[in-house]
Amino acid sequence: MSQVERIGVSVDKKLLSKFDKLIAKQGYQSRSEAIRDLVRQQLSNEQLSNPKAQAVAAVILVYDHHSTKLMGKLIGLQHSHLLQTISAMHIHLDEHECLEIIVLRGHVGEIKRTAENIVSLKGVKLGRINFVAIEQSGH
Amino acid sequence: MSQVERIGVSVDKKLLSKFDKLIAKQGYQSRSEAIRDLVRQQLSNEQLSNPKAQAVAAVILVYDHHSTKLMGKLIGLQHSHLLQTISAMHIHLDEHECLEIIVLRGHVGEIKRTAENIVSLKGVKLGRINFVAIEQSGH
Amino acid sequence: MSQVERIGVSVDKKLLSKFDKLIAKQGYQSRSEAIRDLVRQQLSNEQLSNPKAQAVAAVILVYDHHSTKLMGKLIGLQHSHLLQTISAMHIHLDEHECLEIIVLRGHVGEIKRTAENIVSLKGVKLGRINFVAIEQSGH
Amino acid sequence: MSQVERIGVSVDKKLLSKFDKLIAKQGYQSRSEAIRDLVRQQLSNEQLSNPKAQAVAAVILVYDHHSTKLMGKLIGLQHSHLLQTISAMHIHLDEHECLEIIVLRGHVGEIKRTAENIVSLKGVKLGRINFVAIEQSGH
Repeated sequence: MSQVERIGVSVDKKLLSKFDKLIAKQGYQSRSEAIRDLVRQQLSNEQLSNPKAQAVAAVILVYDHHSTKLMGKLIGLQHSHLLQTISAMHIHLDEHECLEIIVLRGHVGEIKRTAENIVSLKGVKLGRINFVAIEQSGH
Repeated sequence: MSQVERIGVSVDKKLLSKFDKLIAKQGYQSRSEAIRDLVRQQLSNEQLSNPKAQAVAAVILVYDHHSTKLMGKLIGLQHSHLLQTISAMHIHLDEHECLEIIVLRGHVGEIKRTAENIVSLKGVKLGRINFVAIEQSGH
Repeated sequence: MSQVERIGVSVDKKLLSKFDKLIAKQGYQSRSEAIRDLVRQQLSNEQLSNPKAQAVAAVILVYDHHSTKLMGKLIGLQHSHLLQTISAMHIHLDEHECLEIIVLRGHVGEIKRTAENIVSLKGVKLGRINFVAIEQSGH
Repeated sequence: MSQVERIGVSVDKKLLSKFDKLIAKQGYQSRSEAIRDLVRQQLSNEQLSNPKAQAVAAVILVYDHHSTKLMGKLIGLQHSHLLQTISAMHIHLDEHECLEIIVLRGHVGEIKRTAENIVSLKGVKLGRINFVAIEQSGH
């Protein structure tokens, strides 16, 4: 974070007092920090509407680890998209269920397709795909 | 909107320039305005997580207006929740389909139930429920 | 709704019993109806990711009706996008605040821009934009 | 996954053909699988509206790994919520930025608060919180 600019924002007093309460509850230590976060979220959401934007997807899966076929396919899919797949984390929820988070990276449009292929595998009980827009590298 | 306070926010220059571009595209005429909107959205979202919060729900329906049974039920449901139902707008999409927007008002938890009852009526092809938190101010 | 096909779906008994409870609470009278709704929602969401798709947008605004400038601009904006603007509904929330729902129709990409222009007008306290995908007309 | 029941669902032919196209694109190998996924998503969303529901949260963070203070606080926060924190995955995005995914487990209401505390730490550039409802099954 190189250069910083200080800008002035006019806010209605009532609105400000409600905002201060909310961000205190969330744990923010300064208004600037909370407002910067809102700004970054907004920019990230906007960027994600462009299929060519660079992004990271966290694919969250719940499945029964007794379905060995699924695990084989999961590994296979990740390897056939090696350039997109960065990492995976595996968590045991109970004696049957696992949570797996697979992180993909690439253009939004492309990793969306891979993520959907993963989520649609037989045996996946619950799948969620979450995108985070990232800088166009070399920034 | 009574008293206004001017606060200072420190923002990284690069981030600021991206934000300025985005809000110009969206049509904002000042940064203050855009930031206030982000703050209000955030507060509204937070408020809606409380089932007791006062809110307005816009229930958006698409249905075939030939299903006269549905129309009867829709009217019935609105009348049996008279205190919640504020207004309805009906739009003809084509020779078959209608769009109807029904506006409900009350506690989030209560109008959510009414809205779900509307959306689940037989004949409703597509239903969306959108909440907007409103001021508690002694209405 | 012309021809209907009956398909078979295998579902785990526990899952089914939870689903039955949920849809009963929501007011559905049959599983078929509830499942059709899920299918339509999914299709509508998918369609909306295409900026060329036909859609209707409900733009929900909260504003203070004493800001007469805003009201003038709102009317102006709707007239300058006459082909997109279908209708508007105005609701009095209390002595100060109004809720207005403006319905736009057109390609997702185009009405998104108009909707953002409306929401970003000075004086709009809260704005939400909701899209519903519609049939490509002449269906 | 013990007993399976086969249910019949009536669906309009046009709707069915659109759904078949969509799920083929997403990679589903059967309609049953795709419909079960919709049902599970719906149930999971519903469950998450209850603050007492058991859930897993994936907290996704982007931050500059040169902010060593942040890293210390992140570790501290995880340790002070040891019972909630299951695991964390760290990914290098470029020479400055890191992506970290922290997985929390517990009641929705409680892990939401911890997740907000993490996201609001100074130095976190972008934070997203994603919940997945999990079975209550006597773990």
